[in-house]
Amino acid sequence: MRIGVLTSGGDCPGLNAVIRSVVHRGTDVHGDEIIGIEDGFLGLIEGRSRPVSHDDVTGLLTLGGTILGSARVKRERIEWAVENAPTLARNLGIDALIAIGGEGTLTAAKMFSEAGLPVVGVPKTIDNDIDATDVTFGFDTAVHVATEAIDRLKTTAESHQRVMVVELMGRHTGWITLTAGMAGGAHGILIPEKPFDIEAVARMVEDRFERGKKFAIIAVAEGAAPAEGTMRFDHGAVDQYGHQTFGGIGTRLAHELEDLLGKEARPVILGHTQRGGTPTSQDRVLATRFGWHAVEAVHKGAFGHFTALRRSEIELVPIAEAVTRLKTVPADRWAESEAIL
Amino acid sequence: MRIGVLTSGGDCPGLNAVIRSVVHRGTDVHGDEIIGIEDGFLGLIEGRSRPVSHDDVTGLLTLGGTILGSARVKRERIEWAVENAPTLARNLGIDALIAIGGEGTLTAAKMFSEAGLPVVGVPKTIDNDIDATDVTFGFDTAVHVATEAIDRLKTTAESHQRVMVVELMGRHTGWITLTAGMAGGAHGILIPEKPFDIEAVARMVEDRFERGKKFAIIAVAEGAAPAEGTMRFDHGAVDQYGHQTFGGIGTRLAHELEDLLGKEARPVILGHTQRGGTPTSQDRVLATRFGWHAVEAVHKGAFGHFTALRRSEIELVPIAEAVTRLKTVPADRWAESEAIL
Amino acid sequence: MRIGVLTSGGDCPGLNAVIRSVVHRGTDVHGDEIIGIEDGFLGLIEGRSRPVSHDDVTGLLTLGGTILGSARVKRERIEWAVENAPTLARNLGIDALIAIGGEGTLTAAKMFSEAGLPVVGVPKTIDNDIDATDVTFGFDTAVHVATEAIDRLKTTAESHQRVMVVELMGRHTGWITLTAGMAGGAHGILIPEKPFDIEAVARMVEDRFERGKKFAIIAVAEGAAPAEGTMRFDHGAVDQYGHQTFGGIGTRLAHELEDLLGKEARPVILGHTQRGGTPTSQDRVLATRFGWHAVEAVHKGAFGHFTALRRSEIELVPIAEAVTRLKTVPADRWAESEAIL
Amino acid sequence: MRIGVLTSGGDCPGLNAVIRSVVHRGTDVHGDEIIGIEDGFLGLIEGRSRPVSHDDVTGLLTLGGTILGSARVKRERIEWAVENAPTLARNLGIDALIAIGGEGTLTAAKMFSEAGLPVVGVPKTIDNDIDATDVTFGFDTAVHVATEAIDRLKTTAESHQRVMVVELMGRHTGWITLTAGMAGGAHGILIPEKPFDIEAVARMVEDRFERGKKFAIIAVAEGAAPAEGTMRFDHGAVDQYGHQTFGGIGTRLAHELEDLLGKEARPVILGHTQRGGTPTSQDRVLATRFGWHAVEAVHKGAFGHFTALRRSEIELVPIAEAVTRLKTVPADRWAESEAIL
Repeated sequence: MRIGVLTSGGDCPGLNAVIRSVVHRGTDVHGDEIIGIEDGFLGLIEGRSRPVSHDDVTGLLTLGGTILGSARVKRERIEWAVENAPTLARNLGIDALIAIGGEGTLTAAKMFSEAGLPVVGVPKTIDNDIDATDVTFGFDTAVHVATEAIDRLKTTAESHQRVMVVELMGRHTGWITLTAGMAGGAHGILIPEKPFDIEAVARMVEDRFERGKKFAIIAVAEGAAPAEGTMRFDHGAVDQYGHQTFGGIGTRLAHELEDLLGKEARPVILGHTQRGGTPTSQDRVLATRFGWHAVEAVHKGAFGHFTALRRSEIELVPIAEAVTRLKTVPADRWAESEAIL
Repeated sequence: MRIGVLTSGGDCPGLNAVIRSVVHRGTDVHGDEIIGIEDGFLGLIEGRSRPVSHDDVTGLLTLGGTILGSARVKRERIEWAVENAPTLARNLGIDALIAIGGEGTLTAAKMFSEAGLPVVGVPKTIDNDIDATDVTFGFDTAVHVATEAIDRLKTTAESHQRVMVVELMGRHTGWITLTAGMAGGAHGILIPEKPFDIEAVARMVEDRFERGKKFAIIAVAEGAAPAEGTMRFDHGAVDQYGHQTFGGIGTRLAHELEDLLGKEARPVILGHTQRGGTPTSQDRVLATRFGWHAVEAVHKGAFGHFTALRRSEIELVPIAEAVTRLKTVPADRWAESEAIL
Repeated sequence: MRIGVLTSGGDCPGLNAVIRSVVHRGTDVHGDEIIGIEDGFLGLIEGRSRPVSHDDVTGLLTLGGTILGSARVKRERIEWAVENAPTLARNLGIDALIAIGGEGTLTAAKMFSEAGLPVVGVPKTIDNDIDATDVTFGFDTAVHVATEAIDRLKTTAESHQRVMVVELMGRHTGWITLTAGMAGGAHGILIPEKPFDIEAVARMVEDRFERGKKFAIIAVAEGAAPAEGTMRFDHGAVDQYGHQTFGGIGTRLAHELEDLLGKEARPVILGHTQRGGTPTSQDRVLATRFGWHAVEAVHKGAFGHFTALRRSEIELVPIAEAVTRLKTVPADRWAESEAIL
Repeated sequence: MRIGVLTSGGDCPGLNAVIRSVVHRGTDVHGDEIIGIEDGFLGLIEGRSRPVSHDDVTGLLTLGGTILGSARVKRERIEWAVENAPTLARNLGIDALIAIGGEGTLTAAKMFSEAGLPVVGVPKTIDNDIDATDVTFGFDTAVHVATEAIDRLKTTAESHQRVMVVELMGRHTGWITLTAGMAGGAHGILIPEKPFDIEAVARMVEDRFERGKKFAIIAVAEGAAPAEGTMRFDHGAVDQYGHQTFGGIGTRLAHELEDLLGKEARPVILGHTQRGGTPTSQDRVLATRFGWHAVEAVHKGAFGHFTALRRSEIELVPIAEAVTRLKTVPADRWAESEAIL
């Protein structure tokens, strides 16, 4: 078979490992030809593709990013592409497509499948917010990077009696922050699911100082927000050039804590370091297994499904299940971290 | 309550994180007193213990090893201890025990529970061979260390056209070798579950060289064994001092491949580096959650149970379920790695 | 002898390794008693100290921060302390002092030495800006952390066609940024020694995009500044609460590049992660050697001197030589990085 | 100019970084054409080469190994090549050569230079035993890998009261073992420069156990040897197949200590993990600077010289100076580690 493969959406360590695995399984075992589609759905629309051979994927297991690129495509162009799915598939000469991406990609994949371009999905998000799979690749790497940062901050904060605020990824869900916060032993863990009270955060820090623990680490998700009216600075304020006045929530929280506590509070913004670089061993294996099973799914004709980890097995799940709701941090998971707040 | 805690069996990154979590949850939330029992069941028998306070567990999240120590105890002494369980508990002044250990420890924990010393178990093994939990802490760290080694070997093997044999832990099961082998992209993965044919391994290497890939990495579990009669050297031979003549299987395999192939083959023996050092973020979180839930289990009276990860949740499982059979690598998991053999 | 030891100034990986080495060499070989003075010169003034034994330094080799603490002291209090140096030494019961710190600490150490409290200095700065020694401990660790971040950013920037700005430490000198920038292969390296032209930076990025390299990494020292009048945003502007309007130079540069280029530019602020955590092997060895030689210097009576690395040897250098001028990045070192700009 | 570049001898992290730097500096600044010669002097002799462009060196900064390969060449063939140097240079169409290698390579480079093929040398050895340069690239990476292993062994050895023997590279010199041993806080450091007494090693371990420190880490260089007649097992014994009976010195030492002490002693053999993988930031920068200066040296006509680090500067040193004697660990450097023995 001629199987197209594309990567779509934000970056995620392990994308290349999926591509490599698809090529290994497809070409070595099934004699497939694997066609890499460039820049996600954009390449599908514009007919930009190239064959990807065994040699092309050498070294990809450890390489962050995606050799196929990724790009944002407007909703209308996706809709147009869905309508013309059979033509696009014919133009690219592909019999089936493996689409690696987040919730939006999987939704589109489902539409393409129904419109005559048979697709198998592979879920991808560092945020780990796809409900139908126990975990997604990329998440462990993001947590690993964030935890290393918290580890480093801890010793220096302690020696120099400082408050450190580390801003982590997670616009809508707090999985990275909760997990890295627990792994690093952060004293405050602020996530989008639970609006925080800046006064309570300040009190926690003061309590620690009173107990002789003269430092604190606050892990805050970029999407965490104060409970209404509890922060002095205007969260959404922009300056005359249109940029956020105080940077993101991390910088703003550090500023405000400094004012409230009369102690130095320093922000650390890890940004895209959480999305890049060599995936952890766990993410490489999960990505490899997803690629392997995606090829099998194509040959079984399990289109409209995506690969999911359930306990230790990879299962094929209808895409519809993936996109019904965001997996958010539930109250009882949050409770497990309270012991260390 | 006064809750004893002990660590037993071989070392495993995350033991200290469990102890810390037990202390945090027990003392901060329930007002428990946590009694650390020294050197596993030996301390239980000899009445050696010390209170473990919040301050005592500072810094333990990232620290490998166990501050409580561990020691081997003969079966008869364990049996004696079980008979005298209520007395031992009274001597130590504990109301319940959290026993962190492998299959043997959990079996003993069950016996103690039945004999009047109420125990909650926490499973521990770097080998990941306990059936009733999706994964155990320590395993991810061992895989991480092994994968880093394979990553390093790959570039040098390629540049210098060498065969590298890396011997990994796993006497009875191949989980570490399978997982690290897949994560590192090893070309051969030899595990105890599947006796190997040295000629087949040599042929795989020769095939690679013929295809222009002039290097190969073989990951071999310490417990992997050749199919009977397929290796020239005597596997079990000892010299006049009683030491294994060729070292472990890694050294032996390298020697024999060198002879078979007429190419340099070098062994790497990672040994206890896989059991020590800072746990990965995943292992820290799992260990922390296990400790949290073990304390809750004590307060719920769920004795004779142990903490297990099922998908994303921690559940309490009857210890009997843990110790019925070893979780070995099944054929279909093995198949997932064949694409890269 | 009774030898005091203090750590002063900003945090620096390796401080604990020096303390450990001083204790090992002093107590084991010379039979000294080592007195740890708390919070730098503050403890000296306030008479806060404690003996530090062999057991107290167990595990310190790998631990970031300083077990003795550090604090800022006003100039006048230092001057008062210098005048009362003999009394302070008598109160603490110390015969000599090993002072570990940056330029300011070494200057004070010299004054104390002249005033009757014999001091040996150990230079410490992550910035590597002390002229009289080839390198200082802490620097390699800071560079290591920064380089890992750049490595991670590179793959993701490339896959997603982004401009990344990573802000690194270095208020007055650009050593960390130059070194990590070269090690990570940054495309722009902006340091305090060389005011930059934002238009030139933008042009470099555009050139790269035109050549098909559709991403760029800019490493910028926190103290780097635009050539006068070349940036649109006001560098020093503060908002109504007194906080810098655009965050540090990293955030500001990303904002302005985004405006100039019409492409996404994302800042990463590593902050104190560069000052904390486990020192690299190189820093541990240098710190250990400095501690060893500082003790020897005390016993030789080489007061008013500090330990310096010259090629592969540790030499004792008059403190006066350390504090005459800041070691800045010279033009020819900068030139070596231009090939990769 | 057309400049050839080759890598020769054992693997060393940073080789690719030198190649990249040569290409960047040569092509971008001087308009040179860089010709990569395959498999070291073998490619020179056999006329195997390929142009190396800017694109070919993308990603090389972080990649271990050498894209040009390396191979052993018999002395006689080298001598033949020297005699035919001008012809070989003409066949390859090169005006000058940059030869990256160890002592043997530099010696050959000198002979080629004198025979009419102008060569600039770049020193390369993980062993750091070239006298004329403060340090060589690759060394820091090897030490980093070894130190990480010792760090991991320490926690597990302590918790489980074990003796660990870690065998490190260094056939003739002990720099890696000394440096990693100091960085990791090993309790015994055994190097080729100083024949050891097995009884003294055993006594040191016993002393530690008596003082309540119930574990020990021994770092041993592969070339370290017992003082004559002090070990029971025959060091050089081979079995009937011609393989060393007890493995290398690490395995043998562990066996013998186990017998002497009656305690478990486990060997770890890091082998080629020390030669492979991503170079440290320090090694990348040194390699990059060496490449930069090698190109400049070619354009200055400084043939018969090699690049050397002296304090913080790269200098050009006559090759004759590099090859007069091996840089071994001197007694006073050894003394600095004794405090931790």
